[in-house]
Amino acid sequence: MSLTLHGYWRSSAAYRVRLALALKGLSHTSVAHDLRTGAQRAADYRALQPQGLVPVLEGPDGPLIQSPAILEWVEERYPDPPLLPGDSAGRAVVRAMAAIVACDIHPINNLRVLTMLRQDMGADEAATTRWIGHWVTEGFAALETQIERHGAGYAYGDMPTLADCHILPQVYNAQRFAVDLSPFPLLVAAAQRLRERVPEASPEVQGDAA
Amino acid sequence: MSLTLHGYWRSSAAYRVRLALALKGLSHTSVAHDLRTGAQRAADYRALQPQGLVPVLEGPDGPLIQSPAILEWVEERYPDPPLLPGDSAGRAVVRAMAAIVACDIHPINNLRVLTMLRQDMGADEAATTRWIGHWVTEGFAALETQIERHGAGYAYGDMPTLADCHILPQVYNAQRFAVDLSPFPLLVAAAQRLRERVPEASPEVQGDAA
Repeated sequence: MSLTLHGYWRSSAAYRVRLALALKGLSHTSVAHDLRTGAQRAADYRALQPQGLVPVLEGPDGPLIQSPAILEWVEERYPDPPLLPGDSAGRAVVRAMAAIVACDIHPINNLRVLTMLRQDMGADEAATTRWIGHWVTEGFAALETQIERHGAGYAYGDMPTLADCHILPQVYNAQRFAVDLSPFPLLVAAAQRLRERVPEASPEVQGDAA
Repeated sequence: MSLTLHGYWRSSAAYRVRLALALKGLSHTSVAHDLRTGAQRAADYRALQPQGLVPVLEGPDGPLIQSPAILEWVEERYPDPPLLPGDSAGRAVVRAMAAIVACDIHPINNLRVLTMLRQDMGADEAATTRWIGHWVTEGFAALETQIERHGAGYAYGDMPTLADCHILPQVYNAQRFAVDLSPFPLLVAAAQRLRERVPEASPEVQGDAA
């Protein structure tokens, strides 16, 4: 069963999927779509993903969209090693951590929103940077509290979960925009641990990395 | 096993949880937090939800946060009637539809983001309305395509799923902001069908409705 991941080296949603695949030991073929030139809005790609967003994972169940849904699918189809805890309470905690990134940080700061801020709201670079820092800091503060309660090296316990697959790409993003991460030592340490565990998933080693 | 839902009548994330509980035939106690006065930022509430956001569902596994995680928990603990399809491909489609709302429409348009737009970006009402309409229209267009492929009365098939639990509250929101929904007839019809199926979940019949 071959897997093909449509992504972009710097897309943090595609990075989540690369991390999960790497943790599961699953190889995949990569197809790069350059978001800077709008390649993901081409009609043939939109036939796979009607929003014109990355990632798409093509596999035995056809093309799958939306990284949170893709990660649940990967977990269901390739359960070993597990990226969700064995108990319902633990799964709810991990999924909530993932959702803090997937719903409350990332979408507000991604390229299409920043473009709209600049073009329609007239935001300058200072305002955009302040905007990004605000949402990252709010979300990471909540995550740091959760990791303090539930983490033991990783965000939840001592093995990587879907929470870590969301957190590391968001840390990567935050560092690009020079957000001060010093208030979130547990979160940063968990991200670094995952980065070192599966270096093959990192943005800078992807084939399309500039 | 009693369930307590912390919410606000107009919160669309809380509305999602009310819909799932109603579809499962689960009763719950409601605790209202008035988002307009910032009640959800009080210290005792933040002990439950470190982000100071609604909803929180308190139940046998303790306080659960983030509606997508709460809905998965409800589905796991109370599987009947199911709100996810029985096959992995179907589940991936439903979860992706839910994520289009939960990640790509709702968070960009919620109260805290609109407040930041107004206060920090100097957005006036026209700009804010344009902003909301833009993200709703983009997301709903993708959903309409997906419903055309997979729906049969509801968003996926002929019974409500977690996708519908996300879509109806977003339609409610869009109508509040007078977004033109005429390009999305299948989506609007599915939402209306769910609204009539579980009227007890509707915002206007909640105890704190103004």
